Amino acid sequence: MKEIVIIGHKAATAPFSLNDLPGAAGRMDILCRCVSSALFLSHDLRRDVRVHIILKGPPDEPKAIRFDGSSIRYLSPDERSSASLIKKALEKNVRNFWMESTPGVSIRKGDFGNILHEINKKVIYLCEGGEDIRGKRLAGTFDDTVFVLGDHLGLTGDEEKTIEEYEHEIVSIGPLSLHADHCIVLLLNELDRKEYLNRNVQSGEDDYS
Amino acid sequence: MKEIVIIGHKAATAPFSLNDLPGAAGRMDILCRCVSSALFLSHDLRRDVRVHIILKGPPDEPKAIRFDGSSIRYLSPDERSSASLIKKALEKNVRNFWMESTPGVSIRKGDFGNILHEINKKVIYLCEGGEDIRGKRLAGTFDDTVFVLGDHLGLTGDEEKTIEEYEHEIVSIGPLSLHADHCIVLLLNELDRKEYLNRNVQSGEDDYS
Repeated sequence: MKEIVIIGHKAATAPFSLNDLPGAAGRMDILCRCVSSALFLSHDLRRDVRVHIILKGPPDEPKAIRFDGSSIRYLSPDERSSASLIKKALEKNVRNFWMESTPGVSIRKGDFGNILHEINKKVIYLCEGGEDIRGKRLAGTFDDTVFVLGDHLGLTGDEEKTIEEYEHEIVSIGPLSLHADHCIVLLLNELDRKEYLNRNVQSGEDDYS
Repeated sequence: MKEIVIIGHKAATAPFSLNDLPGAAGRMDILCRCVSSALFLSHDLRRDVRVHIILKGPPDEPKAIRFDGSSIRYLSPDERSSASLIKKALEKNVRNFWMESTPGVSIRKGDFGNILHEINKKVIYLCEGGEDIRGKRLAGTFDDTVFVLGDHLGLTGDEEKTIEEYEHEIVSIGPLSLHADHCIVLLLNELDRKEYLNRNVQSGEDDYS
């Protein structure tokens, strides 16, 4: 299971209008595209990915929502579709433990620190200035790491300190600074290639290395 | 100028509701995300990219819309924003030549063949089963190529025949089949890296190769 955490510093923590995701919903559009980038293949889903989005905007922050690729239903690739599942989750009376709102989508009260503590794995923090992901070996499998990204505001100093409590690496995906959803596409392509290579290394095939 | 062409086989050719991009607007959501993937950096625009989307859905197909990174205005990264500029373009009384509908957005009557003829460059067709983009030298600069992608339906036989009228290559972006907007992210990251390498090859820096 590949775990991804994205922090939405302004993202609404109460039901919002689907017609204004960037404005009233606090750049919820970024998080929606992140969910889509993390879970969709062409005509298929990435069933081995779990995405956590941390909502830190008003009025009832912080909350965390988890999309689980292995059990997700009713999700289409468009922003409005993931936004609608987030909105449904926010309609729940949220507690300090996970509650499923729709199949494969769960919500709880909790901040970045709570979620990282719960996942409790080595952190790969995607950030400008990190070491290029292409040169990295990363883990042999990805079951023992969690990938962390910020929204348009990056991560705060406190959030970076939270990461430092864990074994961690800072990794970059290319020479330019990109949106979080685009970083996720590049990250997963890199993992796809590493997995492909691991599968084919013995057969001598290495079309994608 | 990097030129990208995406074909939307069902995409509406008359103004549509912004609240149902995947359904009534004929998977317009895919094209909207492609525009965003092609033009957005974090807090900046890719001013050297021009995206053409070919709309082949009812009621008045085919039409082509061009987003020009060097002059685009009023575009935000969310799907609804690019959809709204597409809708505005479709409100125009369209002819066989380009007419600007909003700054940096133009529309004309015309099919894939017309647009490819007008661009008249070597075609790089992004498709499963092509040669891995990472091994490719591509062009030294990207001014002499046009990148072509299909939507969720891929390209038709006729469209592939149109490509064959030009010098062309078939290139793949990884071991799994991905959405067109995700392919554009991967393509542009590859070009970013090649440009970075070209700029830094003499100084001995090659952090991103």
